[in-house]
Amino acid sequence: MLAKTPKPPYYAVIFSNVLTAVDGGYAEMADRMVALASDQPGFLGFESAREEIGISVSYWKDLESIKNWKANTEHQAAQQYGIQDWYAHYITRIAKVEREYSFIKED
Amino acid sequence: MLAKTPKPPYYAVIFSNVLTAVDGGYAEMADRMVALASDQPGFLGFESAREEIGISVSYWKDLESIKNWKANTEHQAAQQYGIQDWYAHYITRIAKVEREYSFIKED
Repeated sequence: MLAKTPKPPYYAVIFSNVLTAVDGGYAEMADRMVALASDQPGFLGFESAREEIGISVSYWKDLESIKNWKANTEHQAAQQYGIQDWYAHYITRIAKVEREYSFIKED
Repeated sequence: MLAKTPKPPYYAVIFSNVLTAVDGGYAEMADRMVALASDQPGFLGFESAREEIGISVSYWKDLESIKNWKANTEHQAAQQYGIQDWYAHYITRIAKVEREYSFIKED
């Protein structure tokens, strides 16, 4: 369930957001965007959770891959819907992952 | 509810995790760690959400601040409890935030 990312360096797009009360079609669009992102060159993985706020983190090989994904035509349309209807507030942070540590419990 | 972070560059610690079935004391410890982190030098903000997985992102001024927080005695004890009891799997990614974009809906 956690993204299996390669040895750093690579990039993370941390998308933190608060939704409006308008949720028609949001879940379907969000699922579609994850599927579409997964098909893009340079995509490395995705993690997401929502309670009071939503945090979605997508992982990418490099800044060029992120730029191409941002400019994807279908993604652009979804971003417009997001601004019009679904998001009350969002912050997108583009960050270079420098180190990674992990732990898996042995049964 | 989203972290008010300064103009980049700054650092993000992306802590993605899956819990075990052992949850005794977890919520209290997690709340305590957020409060304690907030008092550390270089702390800039915190965002968190949990569904199937938990994602907590803390923001820091620099790598030195992150190193000091990791080494904090009370935090070290919490990390030990986490490994012993609460976490089935976690990945900690340390990333340098290079760019930030935001949107707030005008009412």
